[in-house]
Amino acid sequence: MDGATPLTTDALTRLTTMLEPELHATNRAIVARMDSPVALIPQLAAHLVAAGGKRLRPLLTLAAARLCGYAGTRQIALAACVEFIHTATLLHDDVVDESVLRRGDASANAVFGNKAAVLVGDFLFARAFQLMVDDGSLEVLRILSAAAATIAEGEVLQLTTQNDLATTEDKYFDVIRGKTAALFAAACEVGAVIADQPPERCAALARFGLDLGMAFQLVDDALDYSADQLELGKTVGDDFREGKLTYPVLLAVAAADAPERAFWERTIGESAQTEEDLGTALALMRKYGATERSLARAGGFVESACAALAVFPPSQMREALMDVARYTTARRF
Amino acid sequence: MDGATPLTTDALTRLTTMLEPELHATNRAIVARMDSPVALIPQLAAHLVAAGGKRLRPLLTLAAARLCGYAGTRQIALAACVEFIHTATLLHDDVVDESVLRRGDASANAVFGNKAAVLVGDFLFARAFQLMVDDGSLEVLRILSAAAATIAEGEVLQLTTQNDLATTEDKYFDVIRGKTAALFAAACEVGAVIADQPPERCAALARFGLDLGMAFQLVDDALDYSADQLELGKTVGDDFREGKLTYPVLLAVAAADAPERAFWERTIGESAQTEEDLGTALALMRKYGATERSLARAGGFVESACAALAVFPPSQMREALMDVARYTTARRF
Repeated sequence: MDGATPLTTDALTRLTTMLEPELHATNRAIVARMDSPVALIPQLAAHLVAAGGKRLRPLLTLAAARLCGYAGTRQIALAACVEFIHTATLLHDDVVDESVLRRGDASANAVFGNKAAVLVGDFLFARAFQLMVDDGSLEVLRILSAAAATIAEGEVLQLTTQNDLATTEDKYFDVIRGKTAALFAAACEVGAVIADQPPERCAALARFGLDLGMAFQLVDDALDYSADQLELGKTVGDDFREGKLTYPVLLAVAAADAPERAFWERTIGESAQTEEDLGTALALMRKYGATERSLARAGGFVESACAALAVFPPSQMREALMDVARYTTARRF
Repeated sequence: MDGATPLTTDALTRLTTMLEPELHATNRAIVARMDSPVALIPQLAAHLVAAGGKRLRPLLTLAAARLCGYAGTRQIALAACVEFIHTATLLHDDVVDESVLRRGDASANAVFGNKAAVLVGDFLFARAFQLMVDDGSLEVLRILSAAAATIAEGEVLQLTTQNDLATTEDKYFDVIRGKTAALFAAACEVGAVIADQPPERCAALARFGLDLGMAFQLVDDALDYSADQLELGKTVGDDFREGKLTYPVLLAVAAADAPERAFWERTIGESAQTEEDLGTALALMRKYGATERSLARAGGFVESACAALAVFPPSQMREALMDVARYTTARRF
């Protein structure tokens, strides 16, 4: 099956299909547990969480549990819990300061206001912990509370690197490890923990999730500067406008000649951008092959992710998870 | 001791003195556990959490544990945890929308920006859960995760009642029960839980905390319209400017004649305020005795709080806690 599998969206579709009953149950749990007598909470949460989306993180919990031969139902509530934590961070990540341009699309924050988004995020976060307490495993609580702290650290670190052209590659990897990969890792690990797997299998799934998350964010950051995206009708340049020091920017800055360096200092360092600047940025990314090099770097993490699963015997689920990892660097949206 | 005790700040000072060693240890735990390799986190958190303040909520945990004869040290980390949750809600409560005036003082949000405040709040919240996981009691986790969800519900409910003159007294009490009293209740209850007290004593301390919290918030809301505060150099009218439907406003609106009703509809309902409006609002509060009636209502909760402690035999700590409750309605700042 391995290298011959077509690296299309089919990989995620196939995983979703394999886990359909559990995913349905997870969606039901999500809707049931985001309810509250305070009507604005389900109303605003529905804007994000009930809308659906790929449910990638909860799928990882479900898949990990299945891979480990888990036969119970605890993965359902924990998958919902993982999605709640993810949604809470999305709501909080969208908080804008007065100086920052709002995104073009109608984010929950633009529609309901920063404050409502923050407080509903807090509710989902608290509810996630209630779900874990109901589950009753201190080990699961340990993993996910540590992940939550790491996510916040990653987000704050990202904030401090914003507009800072001196940001190192190490710091960039610290940021994405925190803000993205930590939850991928925890989502996978809890699936193994509830299946009472030995430490090396729990660690292997955590490693798989961590590397998958790193690859996922690298690709995400590359796509934000990819002209192909424009052809697909997707937004490009959000990170550029926000002055985020993502991997493509690090590459372009490192390779820059003097005028290019001045360009990055003005547009990213000082947030002084004009209409034409995004076009220039995309051209510079093309010039230095930033997208290809980002994808290559992501490919390294994908390899490491797949290697981590070698402790498991071959199975449909193991191959499906590896394919999802491989698909990460092939996705174009 | 009872009614004869002078109802001054002495009550809180006395409690603090009685718990000095534990409080010092709690402060050390707070500073140690809010640390992070991401420098902005301790930096911003210090702005609020290390600055000190009354530490009322952690004191309640320490006091409850002592009242229950607890001889261990678990209350220290849990008191720090309670303070972290409180600080996180302060940071998130200060998030402003573009339409809302920033407060005059340099809140953490004004200095560091909304987004940093939100993310550091998230970190403290996650860290609070890590402290609980380290403690290892699922019952403590259950109590504090439920409190966290209830706080968020109370805050969201408050947001939906803002500027809404049709807000009922019941809804107001729901708001303050959530946003304030729930954490007071949980702070007290966990002190009893770690001391392995029977359910009726745990419930009694939860009830004491809940009623104390209700009284505390009622007094807080009354002081925001109290001209005495101006003489003390304190800020008055924050709630008025934000269009919050607090108890004094409910009283004044219920008693309003037609021109007064129009005044409240314009200033609170439509947030259309001029320089002179706060003076008018304070005069209307005086006219209807809003402060006195708020304090009287708070007094009812204080009575109920003290009555709850009747299940405990008389002791210095029991009297000290009752005095703190009684002092609530006497405080002028």
